[in-house]
Amino acid sequence: MTADFSLLEKKIGYKFKDLTHLKHALTHRSMGAVYNNERYEFFGDALLGVVISRHLFEKFPDADEGKLSRMRSSLVKETTLAEMANTIHLGDFLILGAGELKSGGFRRSSILADAMEAMICAIYIDSNHNLNLLDDVLTSWFTSRLDSISPEVQKDSKTKLQEYLQGRRLPLPEYKLFNVVGDNHKQSFTVTCRVSMFDELFTGIGTTKRKAEQDAASKVLAKIGE
Amino acid sequence: MTADFSLLEKKIGYKFKDLTHLKHALTHRSMGAVYNNERYEFFGDALLGVVISRHLFEKFPDADEGKLSRMRSSLVKETTLAEMANTIHLGDFLILGAGELKSGGFRRSSILADAMEAMICAIYIDSNHNLNLLDDVLTSWFTSRLDSISPEVQKDSKTKLQEYLQGRRLPLPEYKLFNVVGDNHKQSFTVTCRVSMFDELFTGIGTTKRKAEQDAASKVLAKIGE
Repeated sequence: MTADFSLLEKKIGYKFKDLTHLKHALTHRSMGAVYNNERYEFFGDALLGVVISRHLFEKFPDADEGKLSRMRSSLVKETTLAEMANTIHLGDFLILGAGELKSGGFRRSSILADAMEAMICAIYIDSNHNLNLLDDVLTSWFTSRLDSISPEVQKDSKTKLQEYLQGRRLPLPEYKLFNVVGDNHKQSFTVTCRVSMFDELFTGIGTTKRKAEQDAASKVLAKIGE
Repeated sequence: MTADFSLLEKKIGYKFKDLTHLKHALTHRSMGAVYNNERYEFFGDALLGVVISRHLFEKFPDADEGKLSRMRSSLVKETTLAEMANTIHLGDFLILGAGELKSGGFRRSSILADAMEAMICAIYIDSNHNLNLLDDVLTSWFTSRLDSISPEVQKDSKTKLQEYLQGRRLPLPEYKLFNVVGDNHKQSFTVTCRVSMFDELFTGIGTTKRKAEQDAASKVLAKIGE
């Protein structure tokens, strides 16, 4: 497999001095427990957080902490990063073990998003820890999203439901994990949500417990008509 | 109130060009919804995260992502930051509204930890966004903790319990919010935890749902003898 990394470099707007760093960032855990991109992802996530935080902090001097946090979450969340990964066809460059290759791992949101974060770390390392350069690269990645984001960004369903209930002095919703199926890499969580105003139990499903809870909360909101 | 900020500056190892930045970082929300340290805390938290991540990433080249994450959590968590705040008597410098002053807000862990994060942002702003300088200052704050931390840092109780059960192919614990008492600023959560191996329900209490769950998990672990 000899992927043409120069295509990818053009799309991300950074030319690596040492391609090893890029390849490291693209190597999924399915290639082995020792040499993979998880450590890069750990650091890349923090680097992304600080760059996005700085942009939002400066761009929205009147937004309070809650609004800043929600905007940051919406920019760095898995689905956003996976969308960006798809735009640059990152899936074509992932280095996956045979199992993940077969099961279509190059299309999985979590794998794509993790590789995006890992690439951020790789750029930082490859540029000799040049945070200004990294900031420029990430700014170009996020330009249109940073331009269009607003402090009135949608709250997530759990937050909306909680605020709705608190505003009416009603008890908080009770989420309960109902079951988990599938092995470590492909778990599906089912969660129930009970709110005092309805007798029925609402069910949510997702690849994480949190997503399942969001799903359940959105069903309660739909019932309420919010 | 004319606090001698030079004392605090000596302790944190940074002299402000413009004390307004420091005072902003020390101003709690109880002083008003518009001018307070919450925005600083938002950005300071991200700045702290990236500096600590860099240290851990470089110091522990063999630690996997899970170990790095756990070490980072233990360094940046509220109780650690509040401990550091107490060492430098940060409580004496907090600018609190009358209500918080009366109820002893200057001793509250969450307020102290938030002010520490806000100070990190203030240093960054005051130094004209000099991340290298900020890194030096934070390194001095965390020297002894960074020296003594180990990748074998304690896992939290929920993680330990989950791993214990997964290792035995048992169902995951079911946490359920039992009730919440107190107003917004002083809530107490009670959570129940059910595990398939015991008939009894374990109860945990804490100032957040997560802490209550940790408390419940620790009781299950105690029962198991872990």
